[in-house]
Amino acid sequence: MNYTAHINVMPLKELLDPQGKAVNSSLHNLGLTNVQDVRIGKHITLQIEANSKQEAEQLAIEACKKLLVNQVMEGFDITVVE
Amino acid sequence: MNYTAHINVMPLKELLDPQGKAVNSSLHNLGLTNVQDVRIGKHITLQIEANSKQEAEQLAIEACKKLLVNQVMEGFDITVVE
Repeated sequence: MNYTAHINVMPLKELLDPQGKAVNSSLHNLGLTNVQDVRIGKHITLQIEANSKQEAEQLAIEACKKLLVNQVMEGFDITVVE
Repeated sequence: MNYTAHINVMPLKELLDPQGKAVNSSLHNLGLTNVQDVRIGKHITLQIEANSKQEAEQLAIEACKKLLVNQVMEGFDITVVE
């Protein structure tokens, strides 16, 4: 079976996000003053060939831990759909 | 009311995604050969002060069109939650 994994990789809440701060300022300069606390991370989609949804999730977690995520600075969440 | 907008900005399907291709190769080199078609974009969260969910969505769309998304090369989807 073919599954699609949607992975969000975000900077940890405890850490500064300079890219987010810059975008926040730019949005305010553009007149969007109701926007606060911008945080920017990565969105990654993978196509995974696996026998079950659980197996696909395990493979996605392995990909995150081995390559996609720096766990010192980032957290991740995974959603797997068929 | 305070809303949280989750925005995914992804390269359009018709376009090459060199970063995704590089990650795809790296995952294969690490032994994750069941993974295909990696695509990498941005995940952005905004806190929006608005009177309704609809208003928050409109502000998020405005932020995307004015600053966050290059519509020549990227598409976006928005999810607003309270």
